[in-house]
Parts: sequence; structure tokens; C-alpha cells
Amino acid sequence: MTQEINEVISPHEELLSETSGVDEETVDLFIDLVEAGARDGLIVAMEDYHPADMADVFEQMPRQTFNTAVKLLDDMLPGDTIAELSEDLRIDALNALSDKVVADVLGELDSDDAALLASDLEDDRQERVFEQINATDRAAIETSLNFDEETAGRLMQRDFVAAPEFWTVGQAIDHMRSTEDLPEPFFEVYLVDPGFRFVGAVPLSVLICAPRETLLSDLGVDISAAVKPDMDQEEVAYIFQQYNLASVPVLDEAGRLTGMITVDDMVDVIHQENKEDMLALSGVRDGGSYQSVWDAVQSRAPWLGVNLFTAFIVSGAISIFEDTLTEIIALAVLMPVVAALGGNAGSQALAVTVRAIAERDMQGARAGRAVRREFLTAMFNGVVFSVGVGLIALVWFKDPQLSGVISVAMFSTFIWAGVSGVLVPIGLEKLGADPAVASSVFVLTSVDIVAFSSFLGLATAVLM
Amino acid sequence: MTQEINEVISPHEELLSETSGVDEETVDLFIDLVEAGARDGLIVAMEDYHPADMADVFEQMPRQTFNTAVKLLDDMLPGDTIAELSEDLRIDALNALSDKVVADVLGELDSDDAALLASDLEDDRQERVFEQINATDRAAIETSLNFDEETAGRLMQRDFVAAPEFWTVGQAIDHMRSTEDLPEPFFEVYLVDPGFRFVGAVPLSVLICAPRETLLSDLGVDISAAVKPDMDQEEVAYIFQQYNLASVPVLDEAGRLTGMITVDDMVDVIHQENKEDMLALSGVRDGGSYQSVWDAVQSRAPWLGVNLFTAFIVSGAISIFEDTLTEIIALAVLMPVVAALGGNAGSQALAVTVRAIAERDMQGARAGRAVRREFLTAMFNGVVFSVGVGLIALVWFKDPQLSGVISVAMFSTFIWAGVSGVLVPIGLEKLGADPAVASSVFVLTSVDIVAFSSFLGLATAVLM
Repeated sequence: MTQEINEVISPHEELLSETSGVDEETVDLFIDLVEAGARDGLIVAMEDYHPADMADVFEQMPRQTFNTAVKLLDDMLPGDTIAELSEDLRIDALNALSDKVVADVLGELDSDDAALLASDLEDDRQERVFEQINATDRAAIETSLNFDEETAGRLMQRDFVAAPEFWTVGQAIDHMRSTEDLPEPFFEVYLVDPGFRFVGAVPLSVLICAPRETLLSDLGVDISAAVKPDMDQEEVAYIFQQYNLASVPVLDEAGRLTGMITVDDMVDVIHQENKEDMLALSGVRDGGSYQSVWDAVQSRAPWLGVNLFTAFIVSGAISIFEDTLTEIIALAVLMPVVAALGGNAGSQALAVTVRAIAERDMQGARAGRAVRREFLTAMFNGVVFSVGVGLIALVWFKDPQLSGVISVAMFSTFIWAGVSGVLVPIGLEKLGADPAVASSVFVLTSVDIVAFSSFLGLATAVLM
Repeated sequence: MTQEINEVISPHEELLSETSGVDEETVDLFIDLVEAGARDGLIVAMEDYHPADMADVFEQMPRQTFNTAVKLLDDMLPGDTIAELSEDLRIDALNALSDKVVADVLGELDSDDAALLASDLEDDRQERVFEQINATDRAAIETSLNFDEETAGRLMQRDFVAAPEFWTVGQAIDHMRSTEDLPEPFFEVYLVDPGFRFVGAVPLSVLICAPRETLLSDLGVDISAAVKPDMDQEEVAYIFQQYNLASVPVLDEAGRLTGMITVDDMVDVIHQENKEDMLALSGVRDGGSYQSVWDAVQSRAPWLGVNLFTAFIVSGAISIFEDTLTEIIALAVLMPVVAALGGNAGSQALAVTVRAIAERDMQGARAGRAVRREFLTAMFNGVVFSVGVGLIALVWFKDPQLSGVISVAMFSTFIWAGVSGVLVPIGLEKLGADPAVASSVFVLTSVDIVAFSSFLGLATAVLM
């Protein structure tokens, strides 16, 4: 307790520091401890840091030093720290530890974290490790491994607190007091009927304030949501956000309680889902949490490959106007301007729309309003920047006709960019495709084609 | 209770539907009720829906219908539903309601939600409304309004559960049982010293399982974090995610307990912060939660304005090679390919880096690893796609020299895109600028210049 008592005396100094992760000094301290091979010192020092911060410290070490640290700590490397490590370091750590140690780690973790680590193991090694875990824990881990990644089944933990609805508050509390290893954290007591079907939840904040003799079923049972094990984690995240939940019960087809997902796990999922959308929009596949250069290459090559061909399609469009380009070289100089501004207007509309779809903000009358808004925005920005482009071109090339041509081309490109930027993702969503992934190709390629062919086409008609 | 009892019998049918917001039938039902002017029917129907879902229903109505609904419901429009509405509808609703009704709404809400609504009111109206709220609630609202938007002070609620550390579990529980309107939800009891300074927190899940005579100070007080009222909400969100918190205490400079932030509020903040990063990267300012076309225009015009000039700078670079372009028109046809692929490689590196910075994944040795990874990825993709571009150009123009020139230009552009895509955001971050906002301009413009001038420059040297 001393450690805590010290903090208790004046916790705020350390608590109130702007905690943007761990600082360099801390990392250096641990590097020194590891390189000095000071096992006991390392173990003692680690106790002062939250597992998440320790994971950050390890991630900021040179990889070599980290590997040394793992060998040094061996069975004293805490499971909750391993679970917080980035995927690549996690795998390195697990590979460096003996089957026995890994088995102990899996045994001590919540089933959701244990499943995460177990899924990092090669199949045959997983076998060997599982043989050394007790039947209950092993069953829990194997059950959640049976569900696909990124589903509620993978996220849920198998330990939760459930009570028959006919129990009194007193019975429930006495039961909890007498129960070993309750899940940590838990925020609700789930009520079940004799068939173990979920019938409601009582928040601890309600339970703790109720008289002991009250029936649990009389405590305004709040069941705003429950999820199936096969529900996609993005759907689960939406439910948490929509209903401000602290935890959600996971029910099987018959409505029986099979697990619990707590909000602290959802916070990570929300980050991940947002990250995937953002990266997909920039043409990076599957979240870009890299183990290696090879992963980085694989996550980016597909979109570059597609773009290799769309880019030549655009060139094809330009080549139609070779004669005009030879005549008026100014067109070759100016055409990237039209494409660049149009491309930006397109990306803006696209990002806003993809985001709105992800937040379920594109349903009913709202979709119509969005399309109308994008059109009017494109009209307005189109007018402003077409005139701007025209004026700069006029000052530069002193050619009113050329200036008129680029203005008109710019304006039509703006309209196309705005409208396609909102309609394409909405359309792909309706077709069941992920708008974040597929939209950019269509929008940006079509914007380029409209930009170049409207500019060069108009020039051919007017200036030749 | 009947409502709940019904649900209790078989909740899972309705609970387990894939709840992607509310369905069209529901929206139509409510539209009909509103247009029929069926006030009582509307009020009864609303009771079956979660405030967040009701807000969705209203947002999916035609604006006209929504305004009718507000007038129809008047004082029966629940405050928690108003708080869930999008900003534009929220303001419409508040303007349509009388000062008295708004005052009652603010009075019934948690101080953080009340402050949100109050901040939507014109100053003079805010005055009038506040005069009709009781002193305590009013003080709470005004206090949080005194903090800047997007800070912990704005997010926190003023009601929390605190107990002297020397109390026993029993005293704490009896105290809570006897206290009216406790915050909902709350997950921890905060421990304070006689100076009301925060000394620790006891999770309810621990408290409820402890024997009544245990001292609160003996229940492993967990104080992994606390925040200052002026801390930026992005920082607060990071702390919640890093330490898997359910709630965090807000302390003043002296360490005195002044408020509490719960994770359900953070979930929305995390969404908002992610959204702002994603939109900023696409050149959309301040989150793009629009009230009007005018807002949309304002959020996008700045970046388009910057791009207007960067685009002409790029044109300037091209114009240097006018003579070469006149000679070999194929260059004008092919140059967009180099720029397009380079631009994509740049956006990919940029998105990955900006994301990693937001997740505090760019500190210590990790930054170095990231730069190395981007360089090698650019090398690899550079080789593959330079050869690809070269081959297609060869097939098309049957000119080995031209094909060689575009390959080399493509490769150098890839290297530049990858390296600038990771170094620029890291650099801007070190300079204290928001990498999500400012990076794209630098990276994409420089990539275009490198693409065009390397391609046209090489062509001038080799082909002329």
C-alpha cells in the first residue's frame, strides 16, 4: 500500500501532468536497466507504470533492446502488458517465451485478451500451449476463437455477473461478495430467467443505492440493447455510441446470455474503425498497423495498381487532343490546375460523405439534403474559384479567350466533383460496397477526365 | 412497469435486430403522427424509443415536419432528445420553444448537456432563460460555460459521488442510498481528504463486493489518471483510451475535486476528434458538421484557396519546359500519370503517419522505424510501378528512351512522396502545428513539382 499512500498524500502533481504517453527519460531509464541486465530493478520499476504505458515504453525501445528485455523478464513479463503491445512486438514476445509461460499468461487474462494473444500463435504451438491451460479458461478462449475477427464474439468476455430476476438486492450483493474473481471492470448485473435468457440489466449505481430487500426485477430494468456474437464490431461500436452504454450483453439466437462487452474495449474498436475508414479513403488497405515493410507494401500496392490504369485512361483522354496541345502549349501548362482544384473539391465532398455514412447520418431526408448541399456548395465555390483561375490565367497569358475557356472548364469540373463526391459513396453504400474503400477511384478518375476533356475540348472548339 | 415487463418476457427479438439506426417505416409513422397533429399519440409513441433514436427520427424528417413537431410537442419535447439532435436542429428547436420551457429543459439535464444547449442560445436570451433556472443548476451551467469549448471543463458534469477516505464501505453505501438524484451513470466513488482534494477512486464493482466495515482507503485505490478543467478534450480522450477508464475526476490546480467525465461522453469525443483529423486531411476545416451551405463553403474554401496558388506554382514549374513540350507532345499526355501515382503514394504515407501521430505512435525509436519503413516501401513500390509505367508507355509510344525517362521520373517521385509523406507531418508536429491540417499542402504540391520537373527535365536532357 505504501506506493498508493504516497500518491494519496498529493496525487495531483503526477496525475495532472499533460500525459501524452511516456517521456524520453522514462524510456532511457528502462533501456539502461535492460542493457545492465538488472532483472530485479526492471521488475520493481515496471510496477510503477500502467501496463499501457509500459507497452509504450517497450515500443519506443530499439527492437533489439526489447527482445533482450523479454528474455530477461521471461515469466515476470505481465500478461496485461503483452496484451497492450502492438501486434509485431506482441508476436515477438510470445515467440520468445516458453509454452509454459505463455499458458500462464493466457490463463491470467480476460478471455477476450487471451483470445487475442492465442490468435497470434502458430496452430501447432497454440495446441501445445492450450494443453497446459485449465479446462475452463481454455474453453472460454477456444469459444471466442470460434468467432470471426472483428465480431462481438471475439470482443466479448465470457465472465460476467448474472442473477435470477426474482433475487433481492441483498441476495445479489451477498452472492457477489462470496464470488471469487469477478470480471474487472463490470458496470451492470445482468438479470436472467430460469432458462438463462437475458431479461434486463441493473446498473451497479442503481443496485448499490437500493434497499437490500428490493427485488432485482423491480429495479427499472434497462435493456436498450443487446448484440449477437456474429455482429460486426463496427455495428457494436455504433450501438455503444448511440445508447451511451457502459456494457452490452451478448446473447445467442435463443436469447441466452453468453458474454459481455465493456465500453473500455469499445473505445479501441472505435479508434480502429475510424482509422480504417480514414486510411481506406487515402488508398491504404486494412488499417495499416504494420509488422513489416512487406505489410506496408501489400496494404498500398492494390490501390496504386488500380491507379496505374486509371491514370493511363486519363492520359488516353488527353491524347485525343494532341493536335490542340501542339498548337497551344499553354494548355499543357494550365491543365494540371483544373485537375488539381477539381480533385480537391472531389476529395472534400467525398470525405464529408463517407464520414456521414459511417455515422449513419445519410438516411431518409438527410441524404437528399446532403446532395443538395454538395451541389450548392460546388456552385458557389465553382463560381469563386473559376473566376480566380480565369483571372490568374488572364494575367499570365494575356488571352481573354483562353481565360474564358479555363474558367468554364473549371466550373463544370467543380460541379462534377461535388455531385460525384456525394453520389458515388451513397451509391456504393446502397450496393453493399464499403464507400470508404471504393469511392476515391471512381470520383478522382472521373474528375480528372472531366477536367482535362472539358478544358482541352472547349479549347479545341473555341481557340482552334 | 408494464412496458418493461413486456420487454422482460422476450426482449431478444427486438433487441437482436441489426440496429443500424431507425428504419424508414418508423420515420414515416412519426411523420404521419405529426402531420395529423396527434399530440398525445406522438407523446405515447416517443416513449417507446431511446432519445438518441428519437433524435435520428427527427433528423430524417423533412425540416418543415420537424418544426411542426416541435411546436406540437412544446413542453413535452424531452430535454435528452433535444441534446441528441444535430446542432442545426437543436438550435431550431430551442428557438421555437418558450424561455420557460427551455429553462425547465436545462434544469432537468446533466450540467454538461445543459451547458451544450445553453451555448446555442443568443446571449440576451441566455440571460432571460437563466433567470428562470434555480441557483444551483444555473451555477453549474455557468461554471462549465466559463471553460473553452472542447476542454475537460466543458465535458465534465458537476455532480459526482465523493466520500471521505476514512469512511467505511457501509457509511458510503448508506450515504448513497439516502442521497437524492445521484449522477446517472457513475462508475466510481471518489475519495477526498478533509480539504476536498482527490485522493483516489473506488470502482463500484469493488465497493459492492467489500464487507461493510472495510475502510474505503483500504480498497486498493486506483488513481491512474485525473485531468485539469482546461485540458484539451483530445488529450482527455487519449487518457481514457490509454488507461481503459470508465470515468475520470476533474481537479483544480490545488487538486480539489471539481467534476467528473464519464466514458459515454468520451465515445462521442473520440468520434469527433477522429472525424476532424480525417476531414482535415482532405482539406475540410472544423469537422464539417454543417448547419448550412454557407458553413460547407466556409469549411472548404480556405484549402481550395491555398490550392489555387499551389496549383499555379506547379504550372510555373511546367512552363519552364514549354519548348520540350512543344517538341514532344507525348510528354503532355503522360505527365499526369507521374503526378497521379506520386500523389497517391504521398497521400498513403501521409494518412498512415498522421494517424500514427494522433495515436501517439510516433515517439522515440518508433519515429525512426516509420521513416525507414516509408523509405523502403517507396523503394519497393517505386521499382514495381516505375517499371509498370515504363512498359505501358513503351507499348503505347514505341519509344524506349521516353519509356526510360518516365520510369526514372516515376521512381524518384515515389521516393520523394514516401519520404516527404512521413517527414512533413512529423516535422509539423514538432513545430506545434496540426499535422492533419497543414501536411497535405506541402506534400502534394512538392510531389507534383518533383513529378513534373523530373519528368520534363529528364526528357529535355535525354530526348532533346
